[in-house]
Amino acid sequence: MAHYKVILTYDGTDFQGFQRQVEGRTVQASVEAALERIGWQESSILFAGRTDAGVHAAGQVIGFNLDWKHSPEELQDAVNANLPVDVSALSVAEAEENFHPRFSAVARCYHYRIFCEPVRQPLRERYAWRVWPAVRTKPLEETADYLIGRHDFSAFGSAPQEGGTTIREIFSSIWKVLENDLVFQITGNAFLYRMVRRLVSFQIEVGQGKRNPEEIKLFLDGGSKEVVQGLAPPQGLVLEEVFYPK
Amino acid sequence: MAHYKVILTYDGTDFQGFQRQVEGRTVQASVEAALERIGWQESSILFAGRTDAGVHAAGQVIGFNLDWKHSPEELQDAVNANLPVDVSALSVAEAEENFHPRFSAVARCYHYRIFCEPVRQPLRERYAWRVWPAVRTKPLEETADYLIGRHDFSAFGSAPQEGGTTIREIFSSIWKVLENDLVFQITGNAFLYRMVRRLVSFQIEVGQGKRNPEEIKLFLDGGSKEVVQGLAPPQGLVLEEVFYPK
Repeated sequence: MAHYKVILTYDGTDFQGFQRQVEGRTVQASVEAALERIGWQESSILFAGRTDAGVHAAGQVIGFNLDWKHSPEELQDAVNANLPVDVSALSVAEAEENFHPRFSAVARCYHYRIFCEPVRQPLRERYAWRVWPAVRTKPLEETADYLIGRHDFSAFGSAPQEGGTTIREIFSSIWKVLENDLVFQITGNAFLYRMVRRLVSFQIEVGQGKRNPEEIKLFLDGGSKEVVQGLAPPQGLVLEEVFYPK
Repeated sequence: MAHYKVILTYDGTDFQGFQRQVEGRTVQASVEAALERIGWQESSILFAGRTDAGVHAAGQVIGFNLDWKHSPEELQDAVNANLPVDVSALSVAEAEENFHPRFSAVARCYHYRIFCEPVRQPLRERYAWRVWPAVRTKPLEETADYLIGRHDFSAFGSAPQEGGTTIREIFSSIWKVLENDLVFQITGNAFLYRMVRRLVSFQIEVGQGKRNPEEIKLFLDGGSKEVVQGLAPPQGLVLEEVFYPK
């Protein structure tokens, strides 16, 4: 019996999120069904983080134990042959016995893509949020900068368990111009529930001139007792990468 | 009664092509249904070019007559409010009475996107063809270069009507690197049925070292009596723009 680490990518559009539910198509259930077909016998896989309905992943990480007689490459082929067309195993490797996709992780990187156009753009809206009126880039960049460091993000999300800390450390937070899109790229030790989508929504309000960049300071570090209202839609968000100690 | 020119974009994934058919969901039928809801009474719209099942458009052009009392902007809003989520009218303008989306056009531009990866990539394969083994860029560029000018493309497609000419003039033919994708961008006066997808398939064989760039000369200008076999899949292709005299 060996322990495996698998990097998964999926198009979240047709899933009710990552985590298995009583009803609804989920990534976890699809992966577990694929693994069962090749002899996997545990009750649940481990994973790095939940993604909500409609959120995508380029680098979700899962872990499981399996009695497998062949190479990791052959395991990857077998898994991919059994996964639906909107999920794929990008890599498969043997892992240390104590490796846990969530608790071993030291950082996560998310990307959120937007573009500014006045009318619907079907070819672009599956993986990006269409924003109008257009945003200015400079205030977005200024706001993103304030996020870097250790902060209490209680105004932007809730802790995974009741009473848990809402302090998170952000290592990098930038907006990049890619073709005609703007992409918010944020890396931190961990994230609160819906934190990235709330941060994006707030920044878009800044980019549209409805708030000043400095206003974000009023919401960081417990400055606001309420969670901010705006929530950017799921289709712009991608769990890009999960990092582990070398 | 005024004549209108509308630029359409659509995600071709869930359509059985542009042109109306007895059965199957088509872009034309969706657009005509939307127009009927705002008082359009003709039997058929005019359009620049058919696109096959699964092929996308960023700049398809249609024309129709309509008795409309308000501005073109209001017509655009009304059309978009009635179109399904995978089709959108990017612009609406009044056109000359003799404007015809197909016969007035002087050039068309198509883009075909590929990327090279050994395993499935759900987040990228809706709008691109995954190619493996990887291609070299230089031979692709060399082959694309041979296409420029007036050529008989009978080996790469058939004329729209029996006995029609298979000579087409290519104004520009290049491969561009965009993020991690390669995009074939071709502009010509007109294109034969499935010509772009056959040209892409041929060039990928060159890029993978199965053919030499110069071999394409054997198939141009009537050098081959047969149509080449390979056909790149539809999802990589986008009808990018249709050009009209200024």
